[in-house]
Amino acid sequence: MSVNLISLLTQQGESAQQPRYLTLTRQIQQAILQGYLPAGYRLPATRELAQQLGIARNTVKAAYEILLAEGYLQSRVGAGSFVAELPDELLQKFTSPAKPEVDIRVSGYAAQFLQLPALNPDQRRLLQPAVPALDEFPQNAWKRCLGAAASQPALSSVNPAGDPGLRREIAEFLLRERGIFADPAQILITSGSQQGAYMVAQLLTDPADPVVLETPGFPGTAGAFRSNGCDLQMVELDPLPDSLPAARLLGLTPTRNFPLGHTLSLEGRLALINWAEKNNSWILEDDYDSEFALGRPVSALYSISKSQRVIYAGTFSRSMYPALRLGYLVLPERLCELFVKARRFMDGGLSQVAQVAMAEFMRQGYFARHLKKMRKLYAHKRQRLEKLIAESALSQLPVLDTPGGMHMVLGLPAERDEAELIRQLNASGLGVRGLSGYCEAGAGYQGLVIGYCADSEAGMASGLALIERHLLAGGALSGSRG
Amino acid sequence: MSVNLISLLTQQGESAQQPRYLTLTRQIQQAILQGYLPAGYRLPATRELAQQLGIARNTVKAAYEILLAEGYLQSRVGAGSFVAELPDELLQKFTSPAKPEVDIRVSGYAAQFLQLPALNPDQRRLLQPAVPALDEFPQNAWKRCLGAAASQPALSSVNPAGDPGLRREIAEFLLRERGIFADPAQILITSGSQQGAYMVAQLLTDPADPVVLETPGFPGTAGAFRSNGCDLQMVELDPLPDSLPAARLLGLTPTRNFPLGHTLSLEGRLALINWAEKNNSWILEDDYDSEFALGRPVSALYSISKSQRVIYAGTFSRSMYPALRLGYLVLPERLCELFVKARRFMDGGLSQVAQVAMAEFMRQGYFARHLKKMRKLYAHKRQRLEKLIAESALSQLPVLDTPGGMHMVLGLPAERDEAELIRQLNASGLGVRGLSGYCEAGAGYQGLVIGYCADSEAGMASGLALIERHLLAGGALSGSRG
Repeated sequence: MSVNLISLLTQQGESAQQPRYLTLTRQIQQAILQGYLPAGYRLPATRELAQQLGIARNTVKAAYEILLAEGYLQSRVGAGSFVAELPDELLQKFTSPAKPEVDIRVSGYAAQFLQLPALNPDQRRLLQPAVPALDEFPQNAWKRCLGAAASQPALSSVNPAGDPGLRREIAEFLLRERGIFADPAQILITSGSQQGAYMVAQLLTDPADPVVLETPGFPGTAGAFRSNGCDLQMVELDPLPDSLPAARLLGLTPTRNFPLGHTLSLEGRLALINWAEKNNSWILEDDYDSEFALGRPVSALYSISKSQRVIYAGTFSRSMYPALRLGYLVLPERLCELFVKARRFMDGGLSQVAQVAMAEFMRQGYFARHLKKMRKLYAHKRQRLEKLIAESALSQLPVLDTPGGMHMVLGLPAERDEAELIRQLNASGLGVRGLSGYCEAGAGYQGLVIGYCADSEAGMASGLALIERHLLAGGALSGSRG
Repeated sequence: MSVNLISLLTQQGESAQQPRYLTLTRQIQQAILQGYLPAGYRLPATRELAQQLGIARNTVKAAYEILLAEGYLQSRVGAGSFVAELPDELLQKFTSPAKPEVDIRVSGYAAQFLQLPALNPDQRRLLQPAVPALDEFPQNAWKRCLGAAASQPALSSVNPAGDPGLRREIAEFLLRERGIFADPAQILITSGSQQGAYMVAQLLTDPADPVVLETPGFPGTAGAFRSNGCDLQMVELDPLPDSLPAARLLGLTPTRNFPLGHTLSLEGRLALINWAEKNNSWILEDDYDSEFALGRPVSALYSISKSQRVIYAGTFSRSMYPALRLGYLVLPERLCELFVKARRFMDGGLSQVAQVAMAEFMRQGYFARHLKKMRKLYAHKRQRLEKLIAESALSQLPVLDTPGGMHMVLGLPAERDEAELIRQLNASGLGVRGLSGYCEAGAGYQGLVIGYCADSEAGMASGLALIERHLLAGGALSGSRG
């Protein structure tokens, strides 16, 4: 019978995420519940089982102790550990398990997500877009600021709209950097642009509503509106079309198109504001990387419209680091109360911890200093990247983006299969993305979105060499240098 | 003309949240945009305006500098600062503002929130429920753990399901404390029970679906399902009714009813699991304060059902502190992928900061130690509260709750107007809440939900004295002691 036990305990795949004693505990529990180990069955001594499984004796001991405490095992002095008598009803649940696969009942809203590809947790790779220079991040200053989150006021204050101190700092930052005048009460802290877009979609658009989104653009923004059932119309805004269809909402990145970087002209901005007023529409202005515009960024739509139709979204994912997951919406006054109220049932607000630390980081001037340094660094890295490209066969590819931001976009010849190339590059350890992933299908764009902020010059060079090799092998480039 | 300016600059209410120079900047900008200060208008010298407004000269200087940089003002050497020529189109926007009040267009989903009372940011008051003993919180240990959030790995890893380290710690905690076997992959980090309930409502129920919720219960849970358009049926589960209506989902707090504290029996648990299997329903098990059950809490529904119908929700709001806003769902395996995918468009995951710190706090053993200490402290505080009540006229009120947790519930005589009493008590600085707020209208419960964890004995005594005074004045109690 002991042989049977060992096979039961080794057949299940181990979870790398779980300590061995928990896995073992669980395996024995399952074996008991599924009837493999009947009541009264004597388990091997801990030393014996440890040897047979090739694990530490303490691991087995820990598992037995948990199972004893839980009532799955009983111990008789001098006789060892035995499987306890368990209620039939409990055992029955396990021996005749439901077949969960056939009857999973999720909402209609949820069903649409089932078809999405699974997410891969983000892993740092060469030339990956949207990753800042984390090695230059002022960790010590940040650590000091994080300490502020342990203060008594930070422990006791809860505010679903966001930490008042952070909202004040953001208001000052927006005024200084973007010429945006916003009362802190208009600022709603989010866990990033994505939550901002989601809340806007839920609260300002109804299913079947026409929504115009700029393309190319963030797939996440489209996802937020599409998952709300909106009727998306993807429109290129460079140049602005003669007429825009009427819509409930227009979403765009006017300061710098994502990911191409071009700027919507002042005339274009005024035209969009007129369009919104005429159609009684909302505008979602995503200002995702104006911090890294070269030179002073143009005025935000938000600040040149006072008709209270523009919702401005900002994020710290790029200026700080992605795992911070902190962003904000600047709301027209008439929407503030609604958003805060709705949030009561959505998430009740976010943790104070990151918010208080961020406020302190801004208050102490660390943020302004870090931004200034990163602006310079990223501009420099862009130059290095351009130089490396100029010296390679990649110089035959057209540069599609307007410099600035945190990535560069190289065009690909139409005959080249972008999806296949990206698969190859990713498999080779590069984080380069395909431009078509930011466009509606059939928009005709294809290219390579190349991050450079997190990489050393050597890293860039080896990444570019890999791209070059794959392109030459595919015949998209000639070997001679441009 | 200078007099006119001063009146413009003093007529608007000051925002306490905003530094004076920003308010001033904004006021001058508004005055310009609305045409009160025409192009070419010379502003008073900074010293002069500062005197007239009774504010520091540097404040005025800062405002002028911003307005100069923004192009609203121009400066002529030796002549001072003048209002600049601005584009007509910009001015027009401001001089003929849209009337936002009449045409606000929000979604049908949003409209329901407009009627909700506005939220008051939480303010600490005497006898307020759900506030832990923050003065006993190990701030130094927490501060050290927060530092871990500045490490390189914490900066670079992003995982929409939650920090893997924290999920591992929670899995161990659940096994140790609750006998729940969950793979870390089944654990989804939320910003508290509210986000958990919201996601469950969105992803597992459709509008018009019948949903059974335990009453009394969390208003926030009901809000999450009601705002999704579900058809709520509020049911008392003590004792369990002979039959439960079929429903898509059942939500309850079986370990300790909220806020009455009674426990659902094992028979009741098994009956609910049978009901769920028969009706192909989901169960949302909110285990909001099993940490503070007196004695070992009963097995979770989650751990005695293997039919994968139970979603278990936990929170750190009570065991740590409310502003942490960190909780988790333990999902049936078949739901894990769906929830993580849907989250991509909902919020993209939460900040790593609080998660990494919490994982470290658990890993270092601080959490277990803190919990142990708080369990003892809260049990002691409860005894003190009971003693103070026994010595007062409040002893005439019945105790409605089962001891444990973080609050006590005293019944009120039917003739007493609970809502009015609570208003009076809150106006007197008490955080006591009304029991009827946790029940569906007409359920017939009324009482006082009294927190005691955050208060000193002197605080409790003075809070109780206030309650006694109000009750005696209202004639609900006799002056003689029970």
